[in-house]
Amino acid sequence: MNYSMIVYIIGWILAVEAALMVPSGIIAVIYGETVGWVFAATIALCLALGLPLIRRTPKNRVFYLKEGSVTVAASWIIMSIMGAVPFVLSGAIPHPVDALFETVSGFTTTGSSILASVEELPYCILFWRSFTHWIGGMGVLVFLLCLLPLTGSGYSMNLMRAESPGPAVSKLVPKVRETAKMLYGLYIFLTLLQLGLLLLGRMPLFDALCITFGSAGTGGFAIKNDSMGSYTIYQQAVTTIFMILFGVNFNVYFLFYMRKPKEAFRCEEARWYLAIIAASTLIITFFIRDSFENLALAFHHAAFQVGTIITTTGFATVDFNLWPAVPRTILVTLMLIGACAGSTGGGIKVSRIVILFKSVLLEMRRNLHPNVIQKVKFEGHVMERTTLRSVMIFFAAYAFIFAVSTLLIAVDNYDLTTNFTAVAATLNNIGPGLELVGPTQNFGHFSTFSKLVLTFDMLAGRLEIFPLLLLFHRDTWRRF
Amino acid sequence: MNYSMIVYIIGWILAVEAALMVPSGIIAVIYGETVGWVFAATIALCLALGLPLIRRTPKNRVFYLKEGSVTVAASWIIMSIMGAVPFVLSGAIPHPVDALFETVSGFTTTGSSILASVEELPYCILFWRSFTHWIGGMGVLVFLLCLLPLTGSGYSMNLMRAESPGPAVSKLVPKVRETAKMLYGLYIFLTLLQLGLLLLGRMPLFDALCITFGSAGTGGFAIKNDSMGSYTIYQQAVTTIFMILFGVNFNVYFLFYMRKPKEAFRCEEARWYLAIIAASTLIITFFIRDSFENLALAFHHAAFQVGTIITTTGFATVDFNLWPAVPRTILVTLMLIGACAGSTGGGIKVSRIVILFKSVLLEMRRNLHPNVIQKVKFEGHVMERTTLRSVMIFFAAYAFIFAVSTLLIAVDNYDLTTNFTAVAATLNNIGPGLELVGPTQNFGHFSTFSKLVLTFDMLAGRLEIFPLLLLFHRDTWRRF
Repeated sequence: MNYSMIVYIIGWILAVEAALMVPSGIIAVIYGETVGWVFAATIALCLALGLPLIRRTPKNRVFYLKEGSVTVAASWIIMSIMGAVPFVLSGAIPHPVDALFETVSGFTTTGSSILASVEELPYCILFWRSFTHWIGGMGVLVFLLCLLPLTGSGYSMNLMRAESPGPAVSKLVPKVRETAKMLYGLYIFLTLLQLGLLLLGRMPLFDALCITFGSAGTGGFAIKNDSMGSYTIYQQAVTTIFMILFGVNFNVYFLFYMRKPKEAFRCEEARWYLAIIAASTLIITFFIRDSFENLALAFHHAAFQVGTIITTTGFATVDFNLWPAVPRTILVTLMLIGACAGSTGGGIKVSRIVILFKSVLLEMRRNLHPNVIQKVKFEGHVMERTTLRSVMIFFAAYAFIFAVSTLLIAVDNYDLTTNFTAVAATLNNIGPGLELVGPTQNFGHFSTFSKLVLTFDMLAGRLEIFPLLLLFHRDTWRRF
Repeated sequence: MNYSMIVYIIGWILAVEAALMVPSGIIAVIYGETVGWVFAATIALCLALGLPLIRRTPKNRVFYLKEGSVTVAASWIIMSIMGAVPFVLSGAIPHPVDALFETVSGFTTTGSSILASVEELPYCILFWRSFTHWIGGMGVLVFLLCLLPLTGSGYSMNLMRAESPGPAVSKLVPKVRETAKMLYGLYIFLTLLQLGLLLLGRMPLFDALCITFGSAGTGGFAIKNDSMGSYTIYQQAVTTIFMILFGVNFNVYFLFYMRKPKEAFRCEEARWYLAIIAASTLIITFFIRDSFENLALAFHHAAFQVGTIITTTGFATVDFNLWPAVPRTILVTLMLIGACAGSTGGGIKVSRIVILFKSVLLEMRRNLHPNVIQKVKFEGHVMERTTLRSVMIFFAAYAFIFAVSTLLIAVDNYDLTTNFTAVAATLNNIGPGLELVGPTQNFGHFSTFSKLVLTFDMLAGRLEIFPLLLLFHRDTWRRF
């Protein structure tokens, strides 16, 4: 294990996090909030811990997938702990486990909150809370790759592979660093576009910033107690569209950017994703048509809720926990499906579901024609056996973590729907679930133990399970 | 498609079913129930339809897995339709869909009932209802293999493979017909043993027969409204032990029979199965200790409920729907796991779960040591790639059917726990679920549409999905 390299990167993570807290400090100054000192203090702490670690660039550049996984997992944990400090120091969330839950929920773009009321929080704290979504959406290590001029053996690829959501990172351009810059460029462009459109719709700048951070990262922390219920139809509609856009595989945007619109439109995952959204919205509209003044409004709220759940954002405009069983079941199914790979969204990912579905169809053909030699195709390519295997194994690992987590939080003795959807909402980085964790509820009532389990699930979901699981494998820490 | 062969086997199925209805007719005579005429009528119907089909043995003996699947699926559907006739004719269950649900529930050894009260049913109807469990437990086609002297190319193997539960039928002895006879021999032996022990415990003969049928097939239809709640502790304990025994891979008994006890004790699946039972029982005992007079009684009821759920039998001695969340969650998890492959139980099967679990562990090792060449081992053998693939694809198909079914029955607008556990209880051939389908409830309140969906799930669960799915594949019916 190349510890010197891991420590070096963690040092950089701390330095970057310090820099990323500066805007929150500025907000405090603008609004004249004295509690802003907590950011100054945390920045100082991050620098004091981080700078000594990056004084020397490590000589040993050997960096396997193992190192990549450990680095990513450790970075996210450390980042979350430091990110929780302002919440505790300011007294906004006094209990450290609660603050950690909220911060992990932010960075992993989950959006599950332990706060019953957010409206009385200081602006600078609200800003930091929403900004963690934006940071976590694209990934901090991807960001670091844009900055660091390191080129070890496989270092950047193995980092990116461990942090990026989805079955496999397709190399957009030969150099990983270029890819990282490109991704962040597209991310910033889309973010500014949404911000502009919300401002055009007369949303206050502070609200527009926070809502945009929440949509871009597909996070879902809102700054009103009714989430997005009190915004205008236009503002909600813009958010619907951008949530869905941020859930699309970023390859698509890259292809547009490269002026290859034909190839962009051919993206199989994005087409399935949009088809699922369209079908779900229409069915839900049908079932909730009587709860709204007119069909258009029912469609509007159906689309918002479908968008917010499938992209795993987690905003809400209405209390969908009160909807009939079919819409509720569709939403739970969408929670599990999630957004596209290579987007900022969470969940199992549309591509994995499509690949599994195709495998089932192929298995039927194999039963009918035992001698057939056929492979699963996706995005126009024959799937490699190892990719197929890792998709299936991901699915199994996901199911195991799901079952164990549901069992563990059952000690709080809530109803099964609450427990099941609480795990679904955190493991898929969504935010709200149903019943006691429904959109008008929060996670504050869980025991400390359950909060830690759900915190683990949020990290496992964001890092796609294996980097986090590897921390618990004996071989990771053994010398060879 | 070799239609002549398929039709021929279906003819035999009808003839065998007619024979299997004779005991119910005898019960009617013994108890002097005039309603027994329905069995005479149904037997006549079965023979009138079946005998013309078996007059000529077909010349074309080509019989691929495709034909095997279609035969098994068609046989089970036709068997269920004919088995439902006595319920409808006698007026015990007037609605045909309800009667079909009840019969499929019987043959698939599910044990979910649409009847709110069974105590007023005639003895002959109760007997037939429980006897369907015993018939379905080992499989009717396996039974047929003992009788029919046909030896086509792959005919018997492909039939048995399609009907037997579990990843793959290991050939116990070279000849499939011998295997089938051996399996039925062991099945009858264990059945008689349980019957004897229950009679020793002074259970009335009629009750002992029905309860034994229900345990042997891991079905779970009871003849009292409180399921097994009013039987003595001894009678419940005997049933606990035999339910668990019938959930063990029959390979184990075969090895004992062959005087290879060492190999029998080494059976990996059975060891996992017993370990899961032990762990679950102990944890549940801990959580329900205060609801019973003493710890021994809590253990007794925990063991019964764990046994009844993991083996997918579905008897109950207490209303476990009232237990705390941890025991309830454990029971739901056990519902999904199910019994051993090659037993009469349903569910995903312990072996599949263990293989998936080992695959996840191996994937972690692969991440740590990219060059490692290691395979998943199970029962002392390296798993073949195709077996591993089919286990994973089964898991995916299972999840898809689960999701679609839950969505479809949501139109009845019940709570999600009811819907989720109703699908779990039928797809895994268990019987009761939680909430509105809990052990003191029944499935009668579902709409006709939902009952048909759940009927499909019971058949899909018993036949392990693919034989039934293939009926809907275009290529199955296409000429080549």
